[in-house]
Amino acid sequence: MFKLLKRNPLTVCFLCLFSFSGMADSGSLVDNRVIDSAREMRDLAREGTQAYTWLESLTTEVGPRLAGSMQEARARDWAVEKLRTLGFDNVRIEPFSISGWERGVEVAEVVAPYPQPLVVTTLGGSVATPSEGVSGRVMGFTTLAELESLPDNSLGGDIVYVGHAMRSTQDGSHYGYFGRLRREGASIAAAKGASALLIRSIGTDSHRMPHTGSMTYEAGINQIPAAALSNPDADQIERMLSRPEPISVRLNLQPKFTGEVESGNVIADIIGSELPNEVVVIGGHLDSWDLGTGAIDDGAGVAITLEAARMILASGQRPKRTIRLILWGAEEVGLLGGKAYVERHRSRLRDHVMGTESDFGAGKIWQITSRVSAEAEPLVALIAGLVEPLGIAPGANSVSSSGPDLTPMMAEGMPAFRFVQDGRDYFDLHHTPDDTLDKVSAANLDQSVAAYVVFAWIAANSDLSDWGWRERD
Amino acid sequence: MFKLLKRNPLTVCFLCLFSFSGMADSGSLVDNRVIDSAREMRDLAREGTQAYTWLESLTTEVGPRLAGSMQEARARDWAVEKLRTLGFDNVRIEPFSISGWERGVEVAEVVAPYPQPLVVTTLGGSVATPSEGVSGRVMGFTTLAELESLPDNSLGGDIVYVGHAMRSTQDGSHYGYFGRLRREGASIAAAKGASALLIRSIGTDSHRMPHTGSMTYEAGINQIPAAALSNPDADQIERMLSRPEPISVRLNLQPKFTGEVESGNVIADIIGSELPNEVVVIGGHLDSWDLGTGAIDDGAGVAITLEAARMILASGQRPKRTIRLILWGAEEVGLLGGKAYVERHRSRLRDHVMGTESDFGAGKIWQITSRVSAEAEPLVALIAGLVEPLGIAPGANSVSSSGPDLTPMMAEGMPAFRFVQDGRDYFDLHHTPDDTLDKVSAANLDQSVAAYVVFAWIAANSDLSDWGWRERD
Repeated sequence: MFKLLKRNPLTVCFLCLFSFSGMADSGSLVDNRVIDSAREMRDLAREGTQAYTWLESLTTEVGPRLAGSMQEARARDWAVEKLRTLGFDNVRIEPFSISGWERGVEVAEVVAPYPQPLVVTTLGGSVATPSEGVSGRVMGFTTLAELESLPDNSLGGDIVYVGHAMRSTQDGSHYGYFGRLRREGASIAAAKGASALLIRSIGTDSHRMPHTGSMTYEAGINQIPAAALSNPDADQIERMLSRPEPISVRLNLQPKFTGEVESGNVIADIIGSELPNEVVVIGGHLDSWDLGTGAIDDGAGVAITLEAARMILASGQRPKRTIRLILWGAEEVGLLGGKAYVERHRSRLRDHVMGTESDFGAGKIWQITSRVSAEAEPLVALIAGLVEPLGIAPGANSVSSSGPDLTPMMAEGMPAFRFVQDGRDYFDLHHTPDDTLDKVSAANLDQSVAAYVVFAWIAANSDLSDWGWRERD
Repeated sequence: MFKLLKRNPLTVCFLCLFSFSGMADSGSLVDNRVIDSAREMRDLAREGTQAYTWLESLTTEVGPRLAGSMQEARARDWAVEKLRTLGFDNVRIEPFSISGWERGVEVAEVVAPYPQPLVVTTLGGSVATPSEGVSGRVMGFTTLAELESLPDNSLGGDIVYVGHAMRSTQDGSHYGYFGRLRREGASIAAAKGASALLIRSIGTDSHRMPHTGSMTYEAGINQIPAAALSNPDADQIERMLSRPEPISVRLNLQPKFTGEVESGNVIADIIGSELPNEVVVIGGHLDSWDLGTGAIDDGAGVAITLEAARMILASGQRPKRTIRLILWGAEEVGLLGGKAYVERHRSRLRDHVMGTESDFGAGKIWQITSRVSAEAEPLVALIAGLVEPLGIAPGANSVSSSGPDLTPMMAEGMPAFRFVQDGRDYFDLHHTPDDTLDKVSAANLDQSVAAYVVFAWIAANSDLSDWGWRERD
């Protein structure tokens, strides 16, 4: 701004106009000193934060953090130790039980006519094959719809392969659509009479890195094992399927269901000075898939929000409302931390004024989406104005997502706010062994921290206690 | 050229001057009709070749082709069938025996204080660990020189980790230098008293893809197992080593030596019309490492040179000399096909007028290097002039490499000629599971085919039968 001022007063006036229009309506909702300190903390974050240090520590010292595992428990211990040392209030674990699942052997090979190994990974929640594996002819489908169009029980025990055309997108929107193949494909293939399901990884890279991720079985359906091929292996199978000879494959997957195991949410507060019972939530999820070290999913979200909360704490200013950092457990296996939180805090849900989760990697934030009442729109506009210098612009006020772990609270009627990160490379890495620290830029994390500081500080200090809670969906 | 002529006559004259100067001295060595047909075949190749089709077929239908394996035998059968169908002369396998080695289990984990799995691959030729694995404290070294500077027997059974700073280069020259760690590191570490060697992969990517490759033991040394960590895993170990606590690792590698097994070179000729006993050699190697499907190493070289030879055959013109396509076996495990060829053809080595191998991936050729006599320099210049429109410029006439499989013939005094491909991404993929077809551009292969057609046609039709054979090195 200084440089602009010297060079071109007109540009500055132009920017001023925008600033005024962006903040005009919110003036009554937020004290100017609050806005000033949001701006100061934002600028401090832009100069560099400790987010990368937290991420380095978590991914190095704990590593992979499968839901319900000892590694996830170590991550909770890691978080509690860090948060207590930093001086947060009420640092605690809220434990809950989940049904455990562990990956075992996962091997696949083309048996004939072109014998060679294939790189696969078992989908999370899949049943095992028999101990000797399952062999059979591969029936290939280009899309899930193509498989769905078959008559039931028409496959006679073939192994079904299904491809798809997921592409890299900035907002990650292909994931929800194409991800249905991973989530529901096994039940659909089973209904058609398949003995196993092989899918093209729900991912956008071209490495021998299969993408795992959760799946469930429809009630009453024959539970068949399901695995994802890496994209180059899916290409290979498709080339084979394009030849006239039938392709036979052997698949040996030995995951185990380990019964009831413990997970938990780690919670730390900055207790509000005036409205301590009203809560603004930020956070990321502590668990990761087991293949990588969970750097982008979701160590980055943990590091960004932990650091944003730490910066507010370190500023010495108390927010009016309580700012709550929740490091969620067991997100990957069904948003179980989010669900456990709703159960435990059901009587006080309406005290959760607003919340948002960072869980879309380590790219720069480029957009805000929300679903808030007309009364709260000026607050969103105020935040948007404050993060505009970070390269963030407001998007639609019709998007009901604040990140996955807040979905159970959204279902109860909570309004939504989300900083959307640039996810163009997210599905290159997501749920693969390649989700490691080297993929993360410290500068990107700093930009996110700056945005979360603004959000948390404004939301915790505004005069608005209801951004648009609704009746239960 | 047509378009240039219409638009800008001056540019054309400028090009003509270059053409004349490049070819002036070679006029007496090569008939103008030979040059014309080289140019015609070059331009035909630029319009599109079948190289990608051969590569697709080899990598799909055969897949990985470890030296001495059934898969390598299938690759020979694949090649013989293709070459006979295309109508080459004397299509044959020249078999030879090698000492077999097969990869088995390869797992590693940090045991303490940060327990988590590591992605490793056994180096080719490594001995196994005991069946329960080997565990120990990790002693880390930044460079091989740092390890070498230790007194002998000073390590007391620690597991040695060695990093390095290999970078991507256009000419691949870092590989020879940094690759010594892979080739010789185990013997050096053993002399210092190590129980096992872990190295940072000799590779330039950031994926969980460890790079295998051959190693040997110094005679009389304690043979310790050796493996490569992927670059992200090497980063992880280095982060752990930078912390104060000692790091302990468990490594379980179960490769097997399988005794005497068969490999072989596949050879096909286009018999010369005037000097059939004089031979110009082109080719690539049929074997690959087992982790990928050997698309860039060296399916590409096989496809490029097979297609160049096919185009010459399909032109209906006979060269004066014999053009010999050699698809080498067992290159990866010690240039064994090249050595077997020298043994078998020792009495006729001097009849090999010139040869070159395509074995540096699927990037575009950008340079010619050679080591030929002054008498042959005009021929190199003629070839350079003909491939200049392909974006290829002459380099030094002091480089004694025609590709790895011709090294044994070079050692016997053969002169050298090489088309150098752009290898900036080569060591991202080399010897990893990621060496697959999707990494290859058909247009790049076509450019190489165009260059090899020019080389083979000019070399087989010039008046020069000796490009500078020397006494044995």
